[in-house]
Amino acid sequence: MRATTIHGTRDIRFSLDVPDPTIQQPTDAIVRVTSACICGSDLWPYRGENDITAGDTIGHECIGVVEAVGDDVRQVKVGDFVVVPFDHCDNTCAHCRAGMQSACVNLGMTSSGQGEYARVVQADGTLVVVPDVGEQGPDKALVPHLMALSDVMPTGWHAAVAAQVRPGGTTVVVGDGAVGLCGVLAAAQMGSEKVVLMSRHEPRQAIGRAFGATHVVAERGKEGAAAIKEITEGIGADAVLECVGTDQAMGTAFAVARPGATVGFVGVPHGVELPVRRMFQKNVGLAGGMAPVREYLPHLLGLVLDGSIEPGKVFDLTLPMDKVAEGYQAMDERRAIKVLLEP
Amino acid sequence: MRATTIHGTRDIRFSLDVPDPTIQQPTDAIVRVTSACICGSDLWPYRGENDITAGDTIGHECIGVVEAVGDDVRQVKVGDFVVVPFDHCDNTCAHCRAGMQSACVNLGMTSSGQGEYARVVQADGTLVVVPDVGEQGPDKALVPHLMALSDVMPTGWHAAVAAQVRPGGTTVVVGDGAVGLCGVLAAAQMGSEKVVLMSRHEPRQAIGRAFGATHVVAERGKEGAAAIKEITEGIGADAVLECVGTDQAMGTAFAVARPGATVGFVGVPHGVELPVRRMFQKNVGLAGGMAPVREYLPHLLGLVLDGSIEPGKVFDLTLPMDKVAEGYQAMDERRAIKVLLEP
Repeated sequence: MRATTIHGTRDIRFSLDVPDPTIQQPTDAIVRVTSACICGSDLWPYRGENDITAGDTIGHECIGVVEAVGDDVRQVKVGDFVVVPFDHCDNTCAHCRAGMQSACVNLGMTSSGQGEYARVVQADGTLVVVPDVGEQGPDKALVPHLMALSDVMPTGWHAAVAAQVRPGGTTVVVGDGAVGLCGVLAAAQMGSEKVVLMSRHEPRQAIGRAFGATHVVAERGKEGAAAIKEITEGIGADAVLECVGTDQAMGTAFAVARPGATVGFVGVPHGVELPVRRMFQKNVGLAGGMAPVREYLPHLLGLVLDGSIEPGKVFDLTLPMDKVAEGYQAMDERRAIKVLLEP
Repeated sequence: MRATTIHGTRDIRFSLDVPDPTIQQPTDAIVRVTSACICGSDLWPYRGENDITAGDTIGHECIGVVEAVGDDVRQVKVGDFVVVPFDHCDNTCAHCRAGMQSACVNLGMTSSGQGEYARVVQADGTLVVVPDVGEQGPDKALVPHLMALSDVMPTGWHAAVAAQVRPGGTTVVVGDGAVGLCGVLAAAQMGSEKVVLMSRHEPRQAIGRAFGATHVVAERGKEGAAAIKEITEGIGADAVLECVGTDQAMGTAFAVARPGATVGFVGVPHGVELPVRRMFQKNVGLAGGMAPVREYLPHLLGLVLDGSIEPGKVFDLTLPMDKVAEGYQAMDERRAIKVLLEP
């Protein structure tokens, strides 16, 4: 099949001769990808920050049509239109039952999402069928919003859950990437009274406001913290979403949190040193990690289908999949927030 | 007055000529100390791990009788028998109202608790009167339990609150010091089904069992984690209380937590490097810090007065205050769990 592969730092290719994924376990399914996208976390290996094996496929976000299923698959069938959570789970083990599907004992990951086909392990536990989709696929206007449910929206939601966003109060979102913007949307949905997005970029600020941000703080560092302090009447934020993964972002998150608050973090940490003394002195907690997408997906799919949320607004560039390298470049240079790929 | 002072590493003295504390603000009170004790955290400066000023008074846990009050004090009066939370608060500011009195904007600390008198700032917000205590003081059998309410019991309680202990499930307590034992008591009171104390010391194990520990794990490190895994049927603990403050204890806490769990920490961290990657990968959170004693005190006082809890069992050595140096030595050498001091 044709699929995106990584060969070195800033060397992304759309390869024409990648082996087709196949049913390897009776719980597997193969999904024909109808939409894919590039994740902020794909930029870590792209930038050489993570080890890679040259020639490996890349891409873990996709939606599409079930093409084949293993003998034990009961909940989905060939022809179903599905959202594919990037983290695959059986949805029955003790961790899944506790709502922590990202720690499933049978955890798997989409590994060729930016290709023609993706293998899904634990298809029954993982895949969520989009109802009433005919052969021509879902309504075109819905596609970006469905696509956002594979990772970015549930990840922003997880940040808000981990930070214990509650109705009323103030939420601060550190990071104006697609995940941070989805964090804004999540906090607003959960009823946070003030939602503050820290962002210096006008197009991102605009999406943040559309998603429910009541305040935008363009300042960074100490000035940014001072601005937050003013918005929160000197108290600090009740919940903080750290959606970047760098030490600087984490430092900002702890600086703006009120005593007793929780920082929810979902950016894969790179070079982060947690300020344990400050956390102790201020009683500011930290929680989060890889999002249990399957846990939130049914609820979020409902919100998309009834028009309550439009997370697909984070996509500001759409490319044919064979131009995927351009997409990585645009996101790396922050010319695009998030790139949607079409086969 | 006579009071305990610190002069260098392992140099504790009971001095005879310390200036009497005085009312300095109209919100102050002076408490005549009728019982005091030594805190595990007093051992940090004792061991030279914290900077000190030679000759400073030490000791932040006490109970006693109100001796004098400032002009603005309304809630307590001379002659009241009170528990003195180690952290003083106005109990009216935004942080106090949020239950985070340890971050009060008017925060103060008891600084001569192991002496004849202690100054309490924000007396109205801080002190809790023990009802129906006559001139001869509280029932002798109650004294250790009341004494434990000044710090150690609310601190163990805070660990359990921070770790989100809930009815059912499994709690693991790392640390068999007085705080850890009070953490066991707290978790049991909160309805944790299994409460596992990690301890190698028989007398501490016995108190732990009396406090509600259902299991005791004597192994440490990897073997200890394996034992916990067996007790939790391979899943890990729902809540973990880290009651030591060392890097090793924190490492153990994260090793035994199930995905999605929270480690509650109340030991002042010394040399702790948080495993942020592991926290992310396992979705294990961290919360805690200095306990907001005043927040929990009314509830805990009720539990002591109706006989539901007997936290004073952590005291296994009582000394006259002029033998305070012996008390520090006994705790330093782990010959005593916690030392009660009488004037």
